[in-house]
Amino acid sequence: MDYIKIFDAIYTNLNKVEDTGKVADYIPELSKVDPNKFAVQLTTIEGSKFAFGDWQERFSIQSIAKVFSYVLAYSRVKSDLWDRVGVEPSGTAFNSLVQLESDRGIPRNPFINAGAIVICDILVSELQSPKQDVITFIRDLAGVETINFNQQVAESEKAFGFTNMALVNFMKSFGNIHNDIDEVMDLYFHICSIEMSCEELSQSFLFLANNGVVPYSNKRVLSPSRTKRANALMQTCGFYDEAGQFTFKVGLPGKSGVGGGIVAVHPQKYCITVWSPRLNAKGNSYKGMLFLEEFTTHTALSIF
Amino acid sequence: MDYIKIFDAIYTNLNKVEDTGKVADYIPELSKVDPNKFAVQLTTIEGSKFAFGDWQERFSIQSIAKVFSYVLAYSRVKSDLWDRVGVEPSGTAFNSLVQLESDRGIPRNPFINAGAIVICDILVSELQSPKQDVITFIRDLAGVETINFNQQVAESEKAFGFTNMALVNFMKSFGNIHNDIDEVMDLYFHICSIEMSCEELSQSFLFLANNGVVPYSNKRVLSPSRTKRANALMQTCGFYDEAGQFTFKVGLPGKSGVGGGIVAVHPQKYCITVWSPRLNAKGNSYKGMLFLEEFTTHTALSIF
Amino acid sequence: MDYIKIFDAIYTNLNKVEDTGKVADYIPELSKVDPNKFAVQLTTIEGSKFAFGDWQERFSIQSIAKVFSYVLAYSRVKSDLWDRVGVEPSGTAFNSLVQLESDRGIPRNPFINAGAIVICDILVSELQSPKQDVITFIRDLAGVETINFNQQVAESEKAFGFTNMALVNFMKSFGNIHNDIDEVMDLYFHICSIEMSCEELSQSFLFLANNGVVPYSNKRVLSPSRTKRANALMQTCGFYDEAGQFTFKVGLPGKSGVGGGIVAVHPQKYCITVWSPRLNAKGNSYKGMLFLEEFTTHTALSIF
Amino acid sequence: MDYIKIFDAIYTNLNKVEDTGKVADYIPELSKVDPNKFAVQLTTIEGSKFAFGDWQERFSIQSIAKVFSYVLAYSRVKSDLWDRVGVEPSGTAFNSLVQLESDRGIPRNPFINAGAIVICDILVSELQSPKQDVITFIRDLAGVETINFNQQVAESEKAFGFTNMALVNFMKSFGNIHNDIDEVMDLYFHICSIEMSCEELSQSFLFLANNGVVPYSNKRVLSPSRTKRANALMQTCGFYDEAGQFTFKVGLPGKSGVGGGIVAVHPQKYCITVWSPRLNAKGNSYKGMLFLEEFTTHTALSIF
Repeated sequence: MDYIKIFDAIYTNLNKVEDTGKVADYIPELSKVDPNKFAVQLTTIEGSKFAFGDWQERFSIQSIAKVFSYVLAYSRVKSDLWDRVGVEPSGTAFNSLVQLESDRGIPRNPFINAGAIVICDILVSELQSPKQDVITFIRDLAGVETINFNQQVAESEKAFGFTNMALVNFMKSFGNIHNDIDEVMDLYFHICSIEMSCEELSQSFLFLANNGVVPYSNKRVLSPSRTKRANALMQTCGFYDEAGQFTFKVGLPGKSGVGGGIVAVHPQKYCITVWSPRLNAKGNSYKGMLFLEEFTTHTALSIF
Repeated sequence: MDYIKIFDAIYTNLNKVEDTGKVADYIPELSKVDPNKFAVQLTTIEGSKFAFGDWQERFSIQSIAKVFSYVLAYSRVKSDLWDRVGVEPSGTAFNSLVQLESDRGIPRNPFINAGAIVICDILVSELQSPKQDVITFIRDLAGVETINFNQQVAESEKAFGFTNMALVNFMKSFGNIHNDIDEVMDLYFHICSIEMSCEELSQSFLFLANNGVVPYSNKRVLSPSRTKRANALMQTCGFYDEAGQFTFKVGLPGKSGVGGGIVAVHPQKYCITVWSPRLNAKGNSYKGMLFLEEFTTHTALSIF
Repeated sequence: MDYIKIFDAIYTNLNKVEDTGKVADYIPELSKVDPNKFAVQLTTIEGSKFAFGDWQERFSIQSIAKVFSYVLAYSRVKSDLWDRVGVEPSGTAFNSLVQLESDRGIPRNPFINAGAIVICDILVSELQSPKQDVITFIRDLAGVETINFNQQVAESEKAFGFTNMALVNFMKSFGNIHNDIDEVMDLYFHICSIEMSCEELSQSFLFLANNGVVPYSNKRVLSPSRTKRANALMQTCGFYDEAGQFTFKVGLPGKSGVGGGIVAVHPQKYCITVWSPRLNAKGNSYKGMLFLEEFTTHTALSIF
Repeated sequence: MDYIKIFDAIYTNLNKVEDTGKVADYIPELSKVDPNKFAVQLTTIEGSKFAFGDWQERFSIQSIAKVFSYVLAYSRVKSDLWDRVGVEPSGTAFNSLVQLESDRGIPRNPFINAGAIVICDILVSELQSPKQDVITFIRDLAGVETINFNQQVAESEKAFGFTNMALVNFMKSFGNIHNDIDEVMDLYFHICSIEMSCEELSQSFLFLANNGVVPYSNKRVLSPSRTKRANALMQTCGFYDEAGQFTFKVGLPGKSGVGGGIVAVHPQKYCITVWSPRLNAKGNSYKGMLFLEEFTTHTALSIF
């Protein structure tokens, strides 16, 4: 299929649509991005690559990184992961304390903030040098040694992170945080600050389209069964309280971040990443969602 | 693949597991079923059939019928369907008034009770003889003229249906019910009372695995795009507040009912129906869920 | 104290304040009232009367009538009243289904709609001719034989009463409604439709200021202890989710209705009724609240 | 009235009732108290004193201290107090984050934990040496120089105070905390740790029964109008989600603490304090509630 041509056609169409979205501005660093940036990159499991726009430019991947930390924990932890975090969509906003209260401190899934914080707590327990180990894991997946945290973003996230501090304290009151809060949150805020390009993201998610094996290195990250489950989890929980909408319109498992990035996986086929910084009211990239909807409609390549 | 052999092996294994589920007993008719009934039936889009147990015995399909009424409305209504009902998983119990209150009378999706009632309201507006038209639609899908409502179940549902009466009145207070409440609920309670066998269910869901076309009659029910979306909706919303769990463990779009039935669809491949009356705490068939989990694990045939 | 002079002074002051309230319009009958009507009437337990404005004109007392039905039930029922309804302020809007769900069908108190409906259910069980008996009870308290239901209002309440129908069905699903829903709601909607003047209201509430005895007839309605408790209940629950505000600013037990009336009781002293149809955002009379705040501030006659 | 005799009679009666309550044990210090301690002390505004049991023994007054900090703030702050905290009963548990979320970071009233934390934030802004100034204020009210914080309790509250840390972070995310979180919480945890006897508590609350003036020193603490309002606030909000119950059964404004103490005020008459460490399911002293119910029933001395 001539993906580049399809990308170009969809992009041209989308430019006729007014983008009512707004760039994230809860920390100064995110608000500085050029709102008109746009990129899309598709990598097949056979290694073909198709790119468009600013696909080599790194941006703040934010919550997309929660897939990496979840996979790292899932590949390491034997026992209690699913006692401490669920696999159900949240149905409410991504940082809801209401739900955490009714669920007695057990987050609905690993991709809402509370769940990702529990994953960080698990990683702090499991890893020797949590921050270093996480970034090394991601660099290995992408095959790029220069991927890194953005210290300034990490510090800003911390300085304005009162809701997340509320979440972690609240979970600790239910006994669902085992380590020192500051250590856990230092890891969490750093993970949120990682910067990658569309190309690097597609590359590093490719094992999820390939039964758990990184295609170019043949390294197994997850068993086939766990790979399916990781994809299933992205399908139902990857887009906060818009997961149903994304599944309904795009029909691929995926994960978004407030930096405007979205990664979607077509099992056995490819991984596609889009980046457009303006967010809709639910916190997902406005044009990114529309682009992927058009893409799977045009190509008839959803999983359903 | 030798499906019969797989069915047999899984069934034998499951018999070693204690079934902690409970038969639905909120109406007397449902409580009378033999709790040890078990059936599974798989039909491929090419027409091959594989069955096990009581696959020809009809049971109360209950909420599975919500897929039929939804598809019928979706194939007819042009405009306002998605203004009146959402596509998001509910995250809470299937008959929650809390969520309906915070969502100002708009149900989260067409498969929770409130959403299915709105669909009934739409069908009352659209159809000449709603009850007759719905049952005819289902008979045509299954190719079986004897499928019918169970009047006694319908009346029992009505006699004990105070929660559903609360839901419809509450939605009417928000303006989201346009017709007379009694007429809407008469249709709703009848739809819940339909009885079908595993074989009939697999047969009648087969168009969802076949891009919207009934394989044996070549009749188009939904466009390919709408078929994908109907499957996507079952994936995120088909199992009340256990949709994430089913997606995670089974990895197929599906729909359950409190009669103990579950239908699951593998797009481009087959439709599989299981029946085991004992329900888990979330109201889904206890053994049916386990069976399908084992089945997709053994066959590696999930969509992810 | 020269109450008339105080009334006049406060009224003159209030006329300088812009009344941002809105007349209730959920049924046509209520919306027809002249929004500029104003009345206040005070009757002491010794029988002195002080009145101002349209104090002889009858208006729709609406939820104020819930005190009458509660007192009638409380004076009759021996056993299970407090198993079926609580004595706690609701903290949320007067017709909230959310709270009823978390409280498993037990309304927080007898003055929110759900609680008043349970009281009606109790009266249907206890009384021979519920509607007749209730209106006779009120006529006896007021000493006025012409007090009556407004049939047109009762029918309108019923025609638009979907939220209340949702409440009663929901409570019946929890087993907290024992009688036929239509019979219970017929009583409820009639009680809401009663029309009385400020003078008649002050007169008929006077037993609550007089240890449970109607001063002019010497007839005991409630024991002294139950009278105190009825007053206590009005103090914490008489103003929907503005009960704290009324207690804080006015400092007397009282009850409001969406017809714009407010009755307040000063135990051992007097009963005062105000009427001003425009309602604040919480559904209580905007000027009525302000008037009573000024009145208890000027006279230093709160109970605290 | 022979209060001592009444105390004795009620106490004897209560001893026949099985005390199903449980001593607070969320911090080790509280769990060490002798659960059978019992004391009651009544001081009239004329200075008469009536005491029974361990009335001179100090205990952890816990949330009772929230009245002191609130009064201190209320007597100092001119402007924004009621923009930052409400006057409505909470209707839910005292440390509910749910309500805080729906109310956008504004606590319902100054006596739930969140509200008391906002009061501490105001005191940190207003006072030179917050901790010293608060304890001096209480010592002056009681006329006892030795009243003090218990440092060990304060540190324990801090070490286990994750729910409160969640509350303060959450409110800060809404902009309703202006100072450094650690400084605010240091004051909060110290205030919770204050120890006083029943006699000292009755003495120091007496100004609330005396129009705002400390009887023995003639020092004005609050204006008469603000005194009434402080009492009104205790009436509707002093007992977490049992405020209605206390008002209904006891009929006096009051405040409880998880140390097992309850102070109640009869305006123009007296102040009464009871202490019994076992708590009911709502966190209020089990026998203390019963004692005061019996007391106001016997003496017919409620405000209603």
